[in-house]
Amino acid sequence: MATNSFGNIFRITTWGESHGKAIGVVIDGCPAGLAISEEDINQALARRAPGKNPYTTPRQESDHAEIYSGIFEGKTTGAPISIVVMNKDADSSQYTDIKNLLRPGHAHFTYLEKYGIFDYRGGGRASARETVGRVAAAAVASKLLEHFNIKTHAYLSAVSSIQATYLPDNFTQLKTATLNSPIFCPDAHAEQLICEQIALAKSQGDSLGGVVTFIAENMPVGLGDPIYEKLEANLAKAMLSLPATKGFEIGEGFNAAVMSGSTHNDAFIKQDNKTQTATNHAGGILAGISTGMPLSGRVAFKPTSSIKKPQPTLDTTGTAQVFNLPEGSRHDPCVAIRAVPIVEAMLQLVIADAYLLNRCVKL
Amino acid sequence: MATNSFGNIFRITTWGESHGKAIGVVIDGCPAGLAISEEDINQALARRAPGKNPYTTPRQESDHAEIYSGIFEGKTTGAPISIVVMNKDADSSQYTDIKNLLRPGHAHFTYLEKYGIFDYRGGGRASARETVGRVAAAAVASKLLEHFNIKTHAYLSAVSSIQATYLPDNFTQLKTATLNSPIFCPDAHAEQLICEQIALAKSQGDSLGGVVTFIAENMPVGLGDPIYEKLEANLAKAMLSLPATKGFEIGEGFNAAVMSGSTHNDAFIKQDNKTQTATNHAGGILAGISTGMPLSGRVAFKPTSSIKKPQPTLDTTGTAQVFNLPEGSRHDPCVAIRAVPIVEAMLQLVIADAYLLNRCVKL
Amino acid sequence: MATNSFGNIFRITTWGESHGKAIGVVIDGCPAGLAISEEDINQALARRAPGKNPYTTPRQESDHAEIYSGIFEGKTTGAPISIVVMNKDADSSQYTDIKNLLRPGHAHFTYLEKYGIFDYRGGGRASARETVGRVAAAAVASKLLEHFNIKTHAYLSAVSSIQATYLPDNFTQLKTATLNSPIFCPDAHAEQLICEQIALAKSQGDSLGGVVTFIAENMPVGLGDPIYEKLEANLAKAMLSLPATKGFEIGEGFNAAVMSGSTHNDAFIKQDNKTQTATNHAGGILAGISTGMPLSGRVAFKPTSSIKKPQPTLDTTGTAQVFNLPEGSRHDPCVAIRAVPIVEAMLQLVIADAYLLNRCVKL
Amino acid sequence: MATNSFGNIFRITTWGESHGKAIGVVIDGCPAGLAISEEDINQALARRAPGKNPYTTPRQESDHAEIYSGIFEGKTTGAPISIVVMNKDADSSQYTDIKNLLRPGHAHFTYLEKYGIFDYRGGGRASARETVGRVAAAAVASKLLEHFNIKTHAYLSAVSSIQATYLPDNFTQLKTATLNSPIFCPDAHAEQLICEQIALAKSQGDSLGGVVTFIAENMPVGLGDPIYEKLEANLAKAMLSLPATKGFEIGEGFNAAVMSGSTHNDAFIKQDNKTQTATNHAGGILAGISTGMPLSGRVAFKPTSSIKKPQPTLDTTGTAQVFNLPEGSRHDPCVAIRAVPIVEAMLQLVIADAYLLNRCVKL
Repeated sequence: MATNSFGNIFRITTWGESHGKAIGVVIDGCPAGLAISEEDINQALARRAPGKNPYTTPRQESDHAEIYSGIFEGKTTGAPISIVVMNKDADSSQYTDIKNLLRPGHAHFTYLEKYGIFDYRGGGRASARETVGRVAAAAVASKLLEHFNIKTHAYLSAVSSIQATYLPDNFTQLKTATLNSPIFCPDAHAEQLICEQIALAKSQGDSLGGVVTFIAENMPVGLGDPIYEKLEANLAKAMLSLPATKGFEIGEGFNAAVMSGSTHNDAFIKQDNKTQTATNHAGGILAGISTGMPLSGRVAFKPTSSIKKPQPTLDTTGTAQVFNLPEGSRHDPCVAIRAVPIVEAMLQLVIADAYLLNRCVKL
Repeated sequence: MATNSFGNIFRITTWGESHGKAIGVVIDGCPAGLAISEEDINQALARRAPGKNPYTTPRQESDHAEIYSGIFEGKTTGAPISIVVMNKDADSSQYTDIKNLLRPGHAHFTYLEKYGIFDYRGGGRASARETVGRVAAAAVASKLLEHFNIKTHAYLSAVSSIQATYLPDNFTQLKTATLNSPIFCPDAHAEQLICEQIALAKSQGDSLGGVVTFIAENMPVGLGDPIYEKLEANLAKAMLSLPATKGFEIGEGFNAAVMSGSTHNDAFIKQDNKTQTATNHAGGILAGISTGMPLSGRVAFKPTSSIKKPQPTLDTTGTAQVFNLPEGSRHDPCVAIRAVPIVEAMLQLVIADAYLLNRCVKL
Repeated sequence: MATNSFGNIFRITTWGESHGKAIGVVIDGCPAGLAISEEDINQALARRAPGKNPYTTPRQESDHAEIYSGIFEGKTTGAPISIVVMNKDADSSQYTDIKNLLRPGHAHFTYLEKYGIFDYRGGGRASARETVGRVAAAAVASKLLEHFNIKTHAYLSAVSSIQATYLPDNFTQLKTATLNSPIFCPDAHAEQLICEQIALAKSQGDSLGGVVTFIAENMPVGLGDPIYEKLEANLAKAMLSLPATKGFEIGEGFNAAVMSGSTHNDAFIKQDNKTQTATNHAGGILAGISTGMPLSGRVAFKPTSSIKKPQPTLDTTGTAQVFNLPEGSRHDPCVAIRAVPIVEAMLQLVIADAYLLNRCVKL
Repeated sequence: MATNSFGNIFRITTWGESHGKAIGVVIDGCPAGLAISEEDINQALARRAPGKNPYTTPRQESDHAEIYSGIFEGKTTGAPISIVVMNKDADSSQYTDIKNLLRPGHAHFTYLEKYGIFDYRGGGRASARETVGRVAAAAVASKLLEHFNIKTHAYLSAVSSIQATYLPDNFTQLKTATLNSPIFCPDAHAEQLICEQIALAKSQGDSLGGVVTFIAENMPVGLGDPIYEKLEANLAKAMLSLPATKGFEIGEGFNAAVMSGSTHNDAFIKQDNKTQTATNHAGGILAGISTGMPLSGRVAFKPTSSIKKPQPTLDTTGTAQVFNLPEGSRHDPCVAIRAVPIVEAMLQLVIADAYLLNRCVKL
């Protein structure tokens, strides 16, 4: 019942605050014999790191993960893997002035009410920095998926009303196009429009929401465990546990609500000597279990709550005040961009866990 | 790690197949001293029961729940509450002819691949009848919420492209309007259009998708436990664990992705001597914890997979076949209608659990 | 976090009170494809049933288990298996007179203090009748172990100061001797002395404690998961969760405390082309993981708390009273006898769970 | 289902190997508002540290714990508390020569068989050094218990056949006597005999087993959750999860098996205006729930497996070899001594968890 743990077999426990001493994760349940290095983890963290384009928060973290346990002679041993990232860049002084203000759209009010105490420095535990532990753990999960030949991907599919529509057909091309984009958007035309839109919002001190699409290929049939560990249920939980998320779709998602059964149903066909479906409106899942078709869905992110505009609010005594972002504060006008590798991380964690759990279902 | 259990403290374990001997649930973790009767549970099941309007499946189940344990002199004792509903109407013969066909949009293929065996009768464990246990458990959870003065509701907010838009402002009126509608739609105009649309689809042997909206009022501040037991994360998991669901939204949901931060942020204000927000785009949650504002979200349902049209498919040997719904089969053209009380049930289960879990967070 | 559930993968949830409508169990996580019948379960319950000898409680329950879910065409499907035993013989009237007395050695005081309410009829949830669900579940687990070729056994090894010492060397002979004994004691000489001792205690209205020994053969190497799911840790929990248990030993147990390392250490040898140990002081476990040698240990049971002697006590108002067992009450002078099949049941549940969990530890 | 986690609400996840980079623990579920410092934790670790007497292993670890997260302005925030202890003294070279030998009484054989890989350096994850994380976590739990006014203690009650018998009546005196003893034995006479016995065993290169007694006073009534989270069940699991443990007793333990019911039953009496029992054979528990009387039990430890005598064994290829402890190896002739603070740590963890869980059982 640990509220900072996720997963059944491949189970992670994340810890750490934005301006605390360090941030990290303990992975329990990773099978023994998997080759993993600190370099693997740091590469994954580098993809997540902000500051590599003008559209995300300029914090220069240069995160460096260290593996403290669970690896022997380059391989997992079955023991818990502890990964630690020391926090370097953490000037908390700017938060002192605003520590008694209920910051709109932020954790301040609810954390303070719930716990009676709030580490307000950089958002504390509620900061998106918390996802460092998830990404580090997912670097291990992705090695596991690689071993099982499962491929995952995520990309920015919309910001505000601009949608990525011209997408490469092929998984590899899609991945390449995404990684070549400073905003993880594989549609070059949409990328340009989004960058302009973000620049405009930034100049106005405002922020924008967005959508991240995830996909997994080479999925085995059978992952996901009814009733409550259905693959889409765990994906939904995984994604909605991320900061700033407001919606989740699998397959057609809300669009399924406006379709008819005769259009939505995917016909079974024999192809490449496998049972497949002619279409994939279901998004690779039937009755909570993977069909072997590509697993796909979308996650909605709200516009960044931190904006450079004065906002009416209360202080902790209940008096009306105006909230202004402190001078020199970082300002990330669209969190959906940075969220792309994090969404992929959660996808990897969910699939890795379902894969292991699926080993127990037959005699 | 039980895949048929849900919840941390208020924890349910559901069991049973559509055409098995019975269906039921065991509730663990319900506090002692709560008054609960079989009548309470049967009333909840009656709301869920199909057949009370021409738009849902005509199966006449007349479910009758019995409490087998956990209640003494009309009150909970802290012991597990076992609730059993015997299955009555279960003619499985019609399923024999189609038992070797991979039914499009159904569990047949994935269950068979995963487990090597599939109880195909009425969909077995994958049938929506599985939700009887959830609704019975939620009848107990709803008594708990009543005790804590929390109110919940759900209604049909869209079918196909018809949206309920003219809604009563007031929670009580909304509830009344919903319960007065044979399709749980509180907007009389939309109700009429939806009924026509469903009648049309039915006449064509086709089916329609829909959306169910849920809401909770009088929420205390502080429910939901970061990081992975965030209230919206557990709601998302709860809803996506329901059959036929394809999407989940909290607050503005996907609409948040097209908003700007200055519009989406809810300003804190003092009202009725409480800290509230002037708007509620967040849907009653900040950083995974309830704000005390109404909790609201939406769940997308795909069109019913069972349609009265021939569909190309394979049999279990991989040979191409045509799937036809057996003569006399029930046919429910829009599962979203029946899903309304089930969505409310999941909402109640999640809130009850979060309420109890919240007792442990302070000294 | 369900307090009425046990096991990680092969997970049981038991429910029911001594004088409630029924008693039962839901098994989650049993692999699909296992042949199981109601007859299998009822045979296991028959072994547990009291009344087949003059030394245990004379209640004639003639328990009959029904499988309500999870079995299709004689085999498990991977869905939860719900087993229900209706309570028949439950005259609660005799408990009315003593319902306000804190019964010495019983649950009355602690349950009432903890929950504010106590189903006192027959001990309610705290009755040893609660173990019916465990034994039913273990009947399924034992089928699984049979499939994996693991053999389990338990026998009465001591009552009061009489110890079973002349034991058959061979597992099969030991099992036969145990099943031929009305008190599950494979040493005929000890059996006779114990029966005499029990008869004496009974004539005095008193009761006796005892010890049950458990053993498993053909164990695979590798079961048990460090650190907290060590095989002996889960066995200890399993056994101490049984009513009336006060002690647990694995291998030499407390005797290990008086040994020297040079005597206690088991030397590794090659035998039957397998790595074995020359002795087995460890009881088949090293560092929490099974060695492949016979798994063995012991469980201490206190003397039955219900005795036919007047006992000073308090009533629920705190007034001094004398507690007398009601006329016609059942009186079982040595619960350790009835506990024998229950100890074996817990052994089976623990091993089955460890077996499945062990599937996830390697690539 | 994390195998390296323990507890339901107050839940710890330990990680780290004997000769890895560090060792540590993440505590989830500690209530917010508890004052805790690194000094508190380091004091607890100092008590556990070996080397402060001639009777335990001479490794000079000078462990220094750092808190990496979860504390803000000196108090817990409700966020996970990550505690890290860097490993300093870890010369692994001596283990290279014996890495292919199955060390008698050690983890080598079972870990290698289970995982296919074994970090043999200093015993890796199976080393008693693993308990550093438990003790650090228990330092936090003990602060919680202090807040709730619950007192805990543990002491060495036997080594080989020497038993501590002359014990101070009073809890405080018992504690003082224990802490004044270099071997945590509050009976000065027994202490002397034990020291002599250990010196003898050491001189012979042999080792001795022992018993640790634990006790808790000022227990509230109501801790422990039937059926499977009974207080004694979780204590048993906690203790048997410790390295080298072979037995567990609560109250009279195995002695209860030789008592009669009329002697073992504790009569309820009114004393100090509270419901108490005249005797406490039960050890402070009835039906899995604390009675408010002192909670007490015992844990058996086997003699240290590492001895300075040649032992026949196999190497990993199955060839017969002789195992000799490498020159300069540490040799701790009686692990029961060092286990004393660790047993108390597990006691604290179990009680803290039960305390929090007990908040959820009433309306």
